[in-house]
Amino acid sequence: MSSQPSHPTLLIPGPIEFDDAVLQSMSHYSESHVGPTFVATFGETLSMLRKLFQTTSPSSQPFVISGSGTLGWDLVGANLVEPGENVLVLSTGYFGDNFGECLKVYGANVDILKAPVGSRPQLPEIEQALKSKKYKLVTVTHVDTSTGVLSELKNLSETVKSVSPDTLLIVDGVCSVASEDIEFDAWNLDGVVTASQKAIGCPAGLSISMFSGKAIEALEARKSPPASYFASMKNWKPIMQNYEAKKPSYFATPSPQLVHALHTALSQILTKPLSERFAKHKEVSDKIKKAVTDLGLKQVASNPEDQAHGMTAMYLPETVKATDLLPKLANSGVIFAGGIHKEIATKYVRFGHMGVSVTDPERGHIDKAIAALTNGLSDCGYQKS
Amino acid sequence: MSSQPSHPTLLIPGPIEFDDAVLQSMSHYSESHVGPTFVATFGETLSMLRKLFQTTSPSSQPFVISGSGTLGWDLVGANLVEPGENVLVLSTGYFGDNFGECLKVYGANVDILKAPVGSRPQLPEIEQALKSKKYKLVTVTHVDTSTGVLSELKNLSETVKSVSPDTLLIVDGVCSVASEDIEFDAWNLDGVVTASQKAIGCPAGLSISMFSGKAIEALEARKSPPASYFASMKNWKPIMQNYEAKKPSYFATPSPQLVHALHTALSQILTKPLSERFAKHKEVSDKIKKAVTDLGLKQVASNPEDQAHGMTAMYLPETVKATDLLPKLANSGVIFAGGIHKEIATKYVRFGHMGVSVTDPERGHIDKAIAALTNGLSDCGYQKS
Repeated sequence: MSSQPSHPTLLIPGPIEFDDAVLQSMSHYSESHVGPTFVATFGETLSMLRKLFQTTSPSSQPFVISGSGTLGWDLVGANLVEPGENVLVLSTGYFGDNFGECLKVYGANVDILKAPVGSRPQLPEIEQALKSKKYKLVTVTHVDTSTGVLSELKNLSETVKSVSPDTLLIVDGVCSVASEDIEFDAWNLDGVVTASQKAIGCPAGLSISMFSGKAIEALEARKSPPASYFASMKNWKPIMQNYEAKKPSYFATPSPQLVHALHTALSQILTKPLSERFAKHKEVSDKIKKAVTDLGLKQVASNPEDQAHGMTAMYLPETVKATDLLPKLANSGVIFAGGIHKEIATKYVRFGHMGVSVTDPERGHIDKAIAALTNGLSDCGYQKS
Repeated sequence: MSSQPSHPTLLIPGPIEFDDAVLQSMSHYSESHVGPTFVATFGETLSMLRKLFQTTSPSSQPFVISGSGTLGWDLVGANLVEPGENVLVLSTGYFGDNFGECLKVYGANVDILKAPVGSRPQLPEIEQALKSKKYKLVTVTHVDTSTGVLSELKNLSETVKSVSPDTLLIVDGVCSVASEDIEFDAWNLDGVVTASQKAIGCPAGLSISMFSGKAIEALEARKSPPASYFASMKNWKPIMQNYEAKKPSYFATPSPQLVHALHTALSQILTKPLSERFAKHKEVSDKIKKAVTDLGLKQVASNPEDQAHGMTAMYLPETVKATDLLPKLANSGVIFAGGIHKEIATKYVRFGHMGVSVTDPERGHIDKAIAALTNGLSDCGYQKS
């Protein structure tokens, strides 16, 4: 149970509902960003991220920088691509497309492999693209928040590494880290960029990322300097290494309060095996998806294997408008999100199920949401045919 | 008085001590970043910034973006300069120099007018530089946190606008906004970039800025697109305008908790006339500077007119090491900062006096700090000669 003031239950695909202790950490008294107590907190936070990403390689490098999740795209664009280099973007929705737009700003030649809405690019076409030219990077959106499509990383990585071993594989994990299994070392990933406010369960305001030794080598081997100052991994890398070694260091002032909250959130996540956490997210997701199907609704992600476990994007019945349904859900104390994929925006809604809403069943969020959805559709005049 | 847990009093030049209500706002329950309650909070926050910056011009544009204060430099570099354009950087320390480094990343031809440590570039040399070539921008650090040198803006602006009317005047106000008078309209400023964690009194994690209509025109007139995605003012401008018009809008997820805290901090600041706030900072600064002088110490900022009112950088006696003094202050419950200006780093310390430590005398921070400094110097064997 939560001791927070009564408020609508936020079940959008991020920001999510937060744990009480995490929110309390947000109001931590002021500390120096280079003082020993905060340096220790930040250092432990970086070390805990290695566990969350399942990496023990000493050459893996975590980064925690004040910013939105979007800043992670700029980290990739400004540091790992040089003007004129080729990037293959695997797109499963709005966020894949825009990752590509970001990389173009930094001079990348971007090829987008764009799947039809609700599906994902398939390995044979990816393999064909990789054989057609030399790509510096392949980017993939693990879960595209606009569609709820889950991409498969393990086989993708094997394909990339066998066809084009020098190509870096970069994952947008904003809507997947801490709700989907990500084995950074075992799957040979070169970068995962994410944000604090989704399944990690810490308020928005932190860009969180992990890069492989190979990605750091690509950074060091650049012919041109990084194309950003604030988003320069060259500027931040020694700072992160110093903090993790518990040494004070300065490039730009971090947010002690947000880092405290992240420390609390990661400490909670790591009290149990990650496999349990991912299994719980899958179990609750299966329950939600069954309820959605039982209501006669179709998911945007058409193939069950391509469906994320931390969110569900569902098409509405033709007779029901999102602008009618969402206020009815809100009246029942449940906030869902509308659609943001341009091709289908008005035709679907999104239900986020990550973090405490999944792991703390006493909150009753999921049952409340399913009941609100059932009643809301009925109030909109919908009956399963 | 504060109801926060007992902790050392943080009197570095940012982050500062925070008000209880501001810290409580940091633990606000989770809200949708596009929901009506948060949209209203963000919109009001942007409107309050207009008052803090003393601008009523409808063409002035405030921005609040997740990031460190340093991100403000990238906003300037990626949006207001195009490769090959000239920038004149007025430097009064570490932060002026590094603003210049940031602008070079974006292709600017940077000329640095660098004053000797403790002073500032003078108007005749600035005028001469402005006449020597066409500058797209002049940048000035209002208070350089590394030296405590205060730059003069009103006469500087008159000089720039009379000698080179097309040149944009951009102010780094990280260590001055809300402790020094800044009259955005009256002084014809084109941009002020700042951060949340200093005199504004909100925890770190927000880049806060105001740009003039003329700066926005320069943005719109660019031949090349902005050189950043996350720091693109073209991407953020419609979002800020929508929030201020209380309309939901999305580019990248803001931090609702930090924006709530900023809303609380600005609401508190604006309950009284700004002139009172600046006078109070001056009064307390004068008292501190007198105490420092009475102790026989010299300030880094040598000319009284060039001394900031929100911090004091003071040289230590030759016999006293910062590494000896700072721990003694900490034992008395007071945290000062060491030096960061490379030429003098080990020879001085910095005392920040902004926000509640100045405006809430019941906290007793200033008297406690002066007593700790006096005793600390004595414990280090120093006696005024």
